[in-house]
Amino acid sequence: MQTLTVELGDRAYPIHIGQNLLARADLILPHLKRKQVAIVSNTTVAPLYLEKLAEPLREAGVEVIPIELPDGEQYKNAETLNIIYDALLTQRCERSTTLIALGGGVVGDMCGFAAATFLRGVPFIQIPTTLLAQVDSSVGGKTGINHPLGKNMIGAFYQPQLVLADTETLNTLPERELSAGIAEVIKYGLIRDHAFFDWLETNMTKLMVCDPDALAYAIQRSCENKAEVVAADEKESGERALLNLGHTFGHAIENGMGYGAWLHGEAVAAGTMLAARMSQRMGWLKAAEVARITRIFKAAGLPVDAPALGVEKYLDLMSLDKKVADGKIRLVLLHGIGKAIITGEYPPEKLTETLAAIA
Amino acid sequence: MQTLTVELGDRAYPIHIGQNLLARADLILPHLKRKQVAIVSNTTVAPLYLEKLAEPLREAGVEVIPIELPDGEQYKNAETLNIIYDALLTQRCERSTTLIALGGGVVGDMCGFAAATFLRGVPFIQIPTTLLAQVDSSVGGKTGINHPLGKNMIGAFYQPQLVLADTETLNTLPERELSAGIAEVIKYGLIRDHAFFDWLETNMTKLMVCDPDALAYAIQRSCENKAEVVAADEKESGERALLNLGHTFGHAIENGMGYGAWLHGEAVAAGTMLAARMSQRMGWLKAAEVARITRIFKAAGLPVDAPALGVEKYLDLMSLDKKVADGKIRLVLLHGIGKAIITGEYPPEKLTETLAAIA
Repeated sequence: MQTLTVELGDRAYPIHIGQNLLARADLILPHLKRKQVAIVSNTTVAPLYLEKLAEPLREAGVEVIPIELPDGEQYKNAETLNIIYDALLTQRCERSTTLIALGGGVVGDMCGFAAATFLRGVPFIQIPTTLLAQVDSSVGGKTGINHPLGKNMIGAFYQPQLVLADTETLNTLPERELSAGIAEVIKYGLIRDHAFFDWLETNMTKLMVCDPDALAYAIQRSCENKAEVVAADEKESGERALLNLGHTFGHAIENGMGYGAWLHGEAVAAGTMLAARMSQRMGWLKAAEVARITRIFKAAGLPVDAPALGVEKYLDLMSLDKKVADGKIRLVLLHGIGKAIITGEYPPEKLTETLAAIA
Repeated sequence: MQTLTVELGDRAYPIHIGQNLLARADLILPHLKRKQVAIVSNTTVAPLYLEKLAEPLREAGVEVIPIELPDGEQYKNAETLNIIYDALLTQRCERSTTLIALGGGVVGDMCGFAAATFLRGVPFIQIPTTLLAQVDSSVGGKTGINHPLGKNMIGAFYQPQLVLADTETLNTLPERELSAGIAEVIKYGLIRDHAFFDWLETNMTKLMVCDPDALAYAIQRSCENKAEVVAADEKESGERALLNLGHTFGHAIENGMGYGAWLHGEAVAAGTMLAARMSQRMGWLKAAEVARITRIFKAAGLPVDAPALGVEKYLDLMSLDKKVADGKIRLVLLHGIGKAIITGEYPPEKLTETLAAIA
């Protein structure tokens, strides 16, 4: 088991990474204010892992309240959130009750937002069961739900007490979702860690067959990179925005295609390719570098071509993004592999040319 | 104009108190990140005060987006909150857009919660137009909505950039609501400020006729008292709970009678009387002190007798309260005027006797 700490002053918390951590009640117990937890999961994950987590807790005298949500991004909304609130209130949960998110990003985001807002905030533990959630939601404290007018429009920054990333849960992950997680892993290499990018090029095959050591290392380096960025900039005013490489384009793809058609990681991969091609148009990235990026995404089974939604629709959807400032679409672009920058200062035609070239 | 500062480190903010502050765009402008504000108000307050606030802002080049909610505690729910989200998203508001709450506690709580959760947090200015909101919601950062299973069950701690308490807005306040606000003012005297309680006994008549100087002093002392408590204990783990004198009983009254039947301040007054009578049963408060408390509430036009809901129903409703810890109902009680304590350690029969004596 590896452990790293996300440094956030009095809200610092540990991330444990390794095999079979789900059953380790001893890792959870020291973080409980009282022996009552509500485990928020979904109809796919609960049958696989709920009892593995719940039984050792019950044996240690903890009351376990299971809350099962429908599975899917389309349920990441106010109605599903209310399922959690209703269960917590009906079961008379209190401020000292700990919420545990057991599942992927959707479960984590919703459970985290419920924790942030139930009784104005209760303790929260993350047990992400997808690679994407392990390398992305584990660090940063972003929680929230979608709104019919945009993804993640309602939410809060809220930090967990503890994260357990159990690599065993990835064995039951559909291949397409494993790839989607790797998209975010590659992102850390691209934005700030050239050595990690090199390591990923060498070890992609191992990751694709779920080699536990390779996975643990990839998760660890991803979380370390994200933790360094987030510790310096918790509320996303500066450097943290670099983590959104490919996301402004990616959110437009997800929204434009209808949520659920593309996985988030797939949209980020195709979105990162758009950012790379625009960076090339700006003269910041060489053709050979764009080729390397294309190759690694392909090796990870990810799409490298964004859907042809049309320039106008892209611009419209991108302007909905939270990174808009004073009406300008700020973009994360690359100054080479391992070096990202954020800017709203670019010739607008570079963006429209990049989008027009999609077809 | 008087100004006090709520000390919360890098989230410290000023409260300005005085006449005709609504029209003082100069007080607001330095706090705006960009020249766009959404003013959240309701159908009662907007016709009276919206333009008085909006016009000078528009003249200063600020885009003003008015959002009007239905008026009443029964609308403090997820559906009404969504009116705010919808308007913000439809009008393409951004992270740098400031939300301004113009209204009483319901508007402030909902607008504050919208600010806390829209795009994971946007800047927020409070302009409370009721006495209750001026002396209560101005300080403390509590925001939220009700849930069918309990009041204020969903919410967040979120601090404003600025509070403007304009005493002129109290001239249009119904008498019953003025009294309800004074209940909270009296509370500060009772829990920690004997001198202020004495002042209130002397000046109650002035307050009841809206004498501006008396009002400004009462608001200032209330906010100062609350600010001192909150600065020491932002998240309500210790001393801050003392501010809930009368509230555990009061929430049970509000909930048991059906939200809206009793005003919050009325329920707090009757609830404080229950706390006083129980304190007397504990031997902590003298009969003469209970008589003084009864007299001042009566002078403020407030109810001193709680409704007879029955002991069981009271206990049941009180156990829903957020101050329950490990199943025990913690109560704020009085060790004399000006000295409150919080405790879960009391003979249960003292509570049931107090409740049984209501009839």
